[in-house]
Amino acid sequence: MKIHTNSIRKQIGNINKSYYDLITHEIGDTNLTVPQVLVCRCIKDEPQMVSSISETVKLANSTVSSIIDRLEKNGYVTRIRDSKDRRIVWVAGTEKLTQLRKKMPVLEESFFEILFEDLDEESVEQIYRSLELLANHMMKKVAEYKKE
Amino acid sequence: MKIHTNSIRKQIGNINKSYYDLITHEIGDTNLTVPQVLVCRCIKDEPQMVSSISETVKLANSTVSSIIDRLEKNGYVTRIRDSKDRRIVWVAGTEKLTQLRKKMPVLEESFFEILFEDLDEESVEQIYRSLELLANHMMKKVAEYKKE
Repeated sequence: MKIHTNSIRKQIGNINKSYYDLITHEIGDTNLTVPQVLVCRCIKDEPQMVSSISETVKLANSTVSSIIDRLEKNGYVTRIRDSKDRRIVWVAGTEKLTQLRKKMPVLEESFFEILFEDLDEESVEQIYRSLELLANHMMKKVAEYKKE
Repeated sequence: MKIHTNSIRKQIGNINKSYYDLITHEIGDTNLTVPQVLVCRCIKDEPQMVSSISETVKLANSTVSSIIDRLEKNGYVTRIRDSKDRRIVWVAGTEKLTQLRKKMPVLEESFFEILFEDLDEESVEQIYRSLELLANHMMKKVAEYKKE
């Protein structure tokens, strides 16, 4: 069991590394970084709040804010204050982002789907069930540790 | 199949998030960050080269270098030039890191094992096989994309 547990960590590392490699390869010579791509994906037709982007990309609000700073500087997004509640800030994509999205499938949610097109349905099912098991176990552990 | 593929991405996100949460909870009120913990784990009894640490933690050399800068500033590691080849730099743990390691299981490789103690062997096997399948598929995709 010892060997498998360490191997599980290594495989998670390999999966994350491959996903980053794929995105890095796809963004090529644009001036975007991987975290910027992940944030851009969250902003579609509707403006988003920083908190909902943070929730989706699983990064801290402060990290997402600094990613948005750089995206705004490069003209891909813009911050808009809510007309009714001035404390609320919305992040909206610009025309420049819309144009970029047309050229880059990696900016679309569907990019992950394309990756799995040539994998048979049974394997996808098996992968999904195991990841669900692992994710639930780890979330349970987080809850346990926080209670201690 | 569409639902599962997007769910796979979400579960990977949940797994990564839980692992970060666990480490964040364990490091508590020390001045360490999660990437610093991952780098510290690589430095045991033997000094390491930046390139081998990068390989283990799956981060770029430049990222690992700046993490080591901060760890060195806080007295946890020290850089040593190779006595035979002055171009080679080794990163070694200090006595302060040894002391910290004794108090924090999260700094040990075995932390991941402890997480899985209460999961039955069959589930661990299933998780391992599925992750291996997913990792291999994604690494194959990276190779394919790079060839295009």
